[in-house]
Amino acid sequence: MDFNSYIRDIKDFPKEGIVFKDITPLLKDPSALNKAVNALYELVGNQKINKVVGMESRGFFFAPILATKLNAGFVPVRKSGKLPYRTISEVYTLEYGEDILEVHEDAIAPGERVLIHDDVLATGGTAQAVCKLVEKMGGEIVQFNFLIELDFLNGKDQIRGYEVKSLLHY
Amino acid sequence: MDFNSYIRDIKDFPKEGIVFKDITPLLKDPSALNKAVNALYELVGNQKINKVVGMESRGFFFAPILATKLNAGFVPVRKSGKLPYRTISEVYTLEYGEDILEVHEDAIAPGERVLIHDDVLATGGTAQAVCKLVEKMGGEIVQFNFLIELDFLNGKDQIRGYEVKSLLHY
Repeated sequence: MDFNSYIRDIKDFPKEGIVFKDITPLLKDPSALNKAVNALYELVGNQKINKVVGMESRGFFFAPILATKLNAGFVPVRKSGKLPYRTISEVYTLEYGEDILEVHEDAIAPGERVLIHDDVLATGGTAQAVCKLVEKMGGEIVQFNFLIELDFLNGKDQIRGYEVKSLLHY
Repeated sequence: MDFNSYIRDIKDFPKEGIVFKDITPLLKDPSALNKAVNALYELVGNQKINKVVGMESRGFFFAPILATKLNAGFVPVRKSGKLPYRTISEVYTLEYGEDILEVHEDAIAPGERVLIHDDVLATGGTAQAVCKLVEKMGGEIVQFNFLIELDFLNGKDQIRGYEVKSLLHY
């Protein structure tokens, strides 16, 4: 399937000069959605996964589906103040400024095998922060799994040494 | 399965006097997650669904899974300014103040059969706003589908006349 035809370029979103990849046309098409889920699942191969971690908010679209298909649990990573229980946190750098990501301190047990999923790998700041959170808990990162990788931003450099698989490259 | 044992009460979150239902213990358990997905799916019965609408952010955990199981598309409803394409919006009332929900204007075609999913039905303000958004686009609401319904808040009164199904009641 040509997934590209289900992804819409939005110029100057969220700010001038950025071309945003809008995946909602893919999500709303039953066949494209199903095929994208299966293709993301196939990126994992037959590696055993205990927990799938997804990043707020667009990482939540596919991470729980991948968890059910992999017979794993799902763990949300959220912005500061959104998770109700005790958390561990990690500061990460954005294009302008900093932000904080959090995860529940009991989300991952030491030695568990973890798949980290997000919709887009851009500069890699978020991915790197989630990587640190997972490893603080003793999780073993099996794969970073993305729907889209923006190759020209070199986000992979922030998570060097890990397996990174993306369905689509721009 | 006793889903209740996978839901954690968090006192005074997000503010004093509120007991928050934390569903992350359910999400992180592979068996509980799978069984919750199947139970939510069974609430729909054999009704034909074209689009599953999920509300930011916790509605995103289950709505896309339900969409794939129902062979439907998934449509995210988000807070103001998060969706990149042209949107329609609806103001809704919170306990204190107002907020805005948005959906892409091309998300649902007239006559499409819609399932609306969220994690919790509380006061019903969000559900009512999403109801209006879907009907503005000409969608036909088949069911409101919740993981948890807080009966004592009478959220059902805000969506009277519609089918409302919830997996768990408190």
